[in-house]
Amino acid sequence: MAVTYVHGYDERESDRLQDQAGALVTLLHSDTAYPPNARVLEAGCGVGAQTITLARNSPHARFIAVDHSVPSLAAARRRVADAGLANVEFLQADIFHLPFPPNSFDHVFVCFVLEHLADPSHALLTLKRLLKPNGTITVIEGDHGSAYFHPDNDEARTAIRCLVDLQRAAGGNGLIGRQVYPLLVGAGFSDVTVSPRMVYVDSSKPDLVESFTKKTFTAMVEGVRQAAIAEGLAPPEKFDAGISALYRTAEADGVFCYTFFKGVGRNGA
Amino acid sequence: MAVTYVHGYDERESDRLQDQAGALVTLLHSDTAYPPNARVLEAGCGVGAQTITLARNSPHARFIAVDHSVPSLAAARRRVADAGLANVEFLQADIFHLPFPPNSFDHVFVCFVLEHLADPSHALLTLKRLLKPNGTITVIEGDHGSAYFHPDNDEARTAIRCLVDLQRAAGGNGLIGRQVYPLLVGAGFSDVTVSPRMVYVDSSKPDLVESFTKKTFTAMVEGVRQAAIAEGLAPPEKFDAGISALYRTAEADGVFCYTFFKGVGRNGA
Repeated sequence: MAVTYVHGYDERESDRLQDQAGALVTLLHSDTAYPPNARVLEAGCGVGAQTITLARNSPHARFIAVDHSVPSLAAARRRVADAGLANVEFLQADIFHLPFPPNSFDHVFVCFVLEHLADPSHALLTLKRLLKPNGTITVIEGDHGSAYFHPDNDEARTAIRCLVDLQRAAGGNGLIGRQVYPLLVGAGFSDVTVSPRMVYVDSSKPDLVESFTKKTFTAMVEGVRQAAIAEGLAPPEKFDAGISALYRTAEADGVFCYTFFKGVGRNGA
Repeated sequence: MAVTYVHGYDERESDRLQDQAGALVTLLHSDTAYPPNARVLEAGCGVGAQTITLARNSPHARFIAVDHSVPSLAAARRRVADAGLANVEFLQADIFHLPFPPNSFDHVFVCFVLEHLADPSHALLTLKRLLKPNGTITVIEGDHGSAYFHPDNDEARTAIRCLVDLQRAAGGNGLIGRQVYPLLVGAGFSDVTVSPRMVYVDSSKPDLVESFTKKTFTAMVEGVRQAAIAEGLAPPEKFDAGISALYRTAEADGVFCYTFFKGVGRNGA
């Protein structure tokens, strides 16, 4: 299955993912650790933004990080090597056609991947077959509909909707975070628990204003400017006003909120 | 100042506030406790939904609970007496004209009140004058723009917008939660910290589905049906479809999210 990655693959995007990983590591990953010798599949490792955290937090687990993009894999490989981590192998493959027999992994980890797939349920079923009995799957996804801010602003909401619409047109779902629970239950996982990871940013947290509000979220929306305008989803001046309004929320009296969802399920079958 | 309370004062509303208080006590109040003999003002105690929790969690502090509504005060007084609590006095007064000299209180507590005021900044300045130096103010507010759900639904969002619009027409602000930080800073409080309290509900938490999704949030929106239709904010069939869609989020594959904001500031002046 061909997958169009709505955010593109340029260098700025790579910076964005790196900033995001830096700011959110604790919030998203601090409660994920795998035991020694566990064999863990990271399905859709991208440029390795999460891979280094996973591998660091579970130094004695063995990770197989898979992505369909050759340049992303090269970046991930470099990043893991630069971090001095030796417990990750990389493999180029499609998430729907992974070259592993059933029961290959103790655990599976999937972060910011399902949002880009036309059939996330199918992906989860495919991954479930690769899990040993009682193995866990961990899924982390954002939800662009969880973004709200002060000052509130119509154009800002329009610009965000452009991103969601483009992602939908590419076969993805930018509002998937809220669906992690039903998706995991629907795929037959047991003992599913989902916890929201809300990023609340006001000016008492200048690092988060910079790394999240500006360099992660607003940069992500800004990244679809050309596509949004080309597709006629917003006139340029309206889109740009929306971006300005998002940057406005990074000022002293501004507030920005966004929520990620982390779900864990067990292969009880 | 006359204040129109958008939710009305009938018995169902009183039940709604009681359910809400029951489900949310830990989330909202577990980190609020006042030392022995502290003199604490609860400004806008309503029917006492928060008062009993406050008084229970700080049994040796002395509370003065104020509200402008005589029937609400009577209900609050009854509730506190039924709970066997003896550390609360009640007083009927307007939040903008409280009969206390400056520096009267060690701490002030305000919950679900600012959202109903046309000038919340003025209210905070008024309350600040009543605080002793280094006394704290605690503010808790919801934000109806923080509500999102699965399945997503246009009519449900319209029905919620009716509530926000009616609250605005009555001089209030149903999106005030995200503004707690700038409001407290703007009123001159020091060391302001705001933390979001997100209510995440899926069907693994049936009590919360019942008490929050259905009996708190959806009941609150449903409560403005007549007013919304009378004001022409939505045709009856669209409003009713929105309510049905909100109840739909309470089914097995549904998810409902809402966030409260709790802010604490210090009277450093």
